[in-house]
Amino acid sequence: MAIDPNAEIEITALKWVPAPAQGLVKDLRIRWALEEAGLDYRVRLLSGERPPEYAKDQAFNQVPFFNDGKVRIFESGAILQYIGEQSETLLPRDPEAKFRAIQWTYAAATSVEPFVQFRALLNGPFSTQDWAEPAKPTFDHFAQLRLGQIADRLADNDWLEGSRFTIGDLMMVSVLRIADRSSQLTNIPRLAAYVKRGEARPAFQRALSDQLAAFREHQPEGVAA
Amino acid sequence: MAIDPNAEIEITALKWVPAPAQGLVKDLRIRWALEEAGLDYRVRLLSGERPPEYAKDQAFNQVPFFNDGKVRIFESGAILQYIGEQSETLLPRDPEAKFRAIQWTYAAATSVEPFVQFRALLNGPFSTQDWAEPAKPTFDHFAQLRLGQIADRLADNDWLEGSRFTIGDLMMVSVLRIADRSSQLTNIPRLAAYVKRGEARPAFQRALSDQLAAFREHQPEGVAA
Repeated sequence: MAIDPNAEIEITALKWVPAPAQGLVKDLRIRWALEEAGLDYRVRLLSGERPPEYAKDQAFNQVPFFNDGKVRIFESGAILQYIGEQSETLLPRDPEAKFRAIQWTYAAATSVEPFVQFRALLNGPFSTQDWAEPAKPTFDHFAQLRLGQIADRLADNDWLEGSRFTIGDLMMVSVLRIADRSSQLTNIPRLAAYVKRGEARPAFQRALSDQLAAFREHQPEGVAA
Repeated sequence: MAIDPNAEIEITALKWVPAPAQGLVKDLRIRWALEEAGLDYRVRLLSGERPPEYAKDQAFNQVPFFNDGKVRIFESGAILQYIGEQSETLLPRDPEAKFRAIQWTYAAATSVEPFVQFRALLNGPFSTQDWAEPAKPTFDHFAQLRLGQIADRLADNDWLEGSRFTIGDLMMVSVLRIADRSSQLTNIPRLAAYVKRGEARPAFQRALSDQLAAFREHQPEGVAA
């Protein structure tokens, strides 16, 4: 529900990132799930230079890492599942409904995000490379193919499995926000509306506001906000 | 344990793929898990042209799709988890050990596979593109970074969490086989040895043999095997 320095659940997040990454850093996915589940948590903020022992917790030196005193894990998808097991709001108990929600977390993170993320990088950090511009049509093709398949599957439903929001939607909306911010949803209004539905949830709003508050607090002097 | 046309579990696979993809198509991951778990299964082979209704089962028109009469799901990671819940050999019951195994399936499929796969594509289907050659150093950098992090984490252990093989290793070895086949493990003998350990498991050998047998049976005339 809220950030509480005495909460059992601790997640790691970043003190500050440049504007293009603000609101997309992956601790947001976990904050959002914790808000949906009504679980308090505390945040351990890391700077660009990680503590030397951090790689033992998070093999890729990234955020988030999750620790509730019982389970110490990384990878957003695994953490979402763990939170989901404590919240039927996020993860149904019926086996088929449960595994379909899990399926969509993998679909979002493995079958959509890589294409969308690489395409976004071509406009971002990769844009200074000579090969970035000529590579765009190929990456556009694959990203738009996958996005179109998700739009087809969503059809006129509010959420991927119909009327019920799950961790699958939480992950998919989070991935599609990368696509949205890099103008990849311009011709897919159905997915743009799906993203808006996700972002309109009060739990998402609280999570986003809390991530951005840390960035404001640690804004480096002399760098544009 | 074996392919049985009367088994309850059905997976989809492909009738035939060109040699560079043989042994890497993702139904292998599921066959391998089913062999480890000692579960019989039947295979529904699909040609390049999918039945029109198949996209309702598998949103990306790919294989595998899993159906045991109780649960109908796609995405290898989700299927591995579902099989794992029926086999303590593959997925420990202790919550932390369980979620660490799950964590590694996401790590393999989301934090390693995209980099390794895109780098492999630059030598394969993308190699005819003008931008493929100049893009190689960037993709090499990211792929080698992630592979090195996995090698560091593996250290001198047989498996990612020590002495016990789980679905996390099954997914990671499957992903690293893509890297191995595209010469990305040349300078990382620790990961090459880890792949060999995975491939030496009798369950893997049976799974691979069964996938390849279908390709041999459906080898198109006039195409080199």
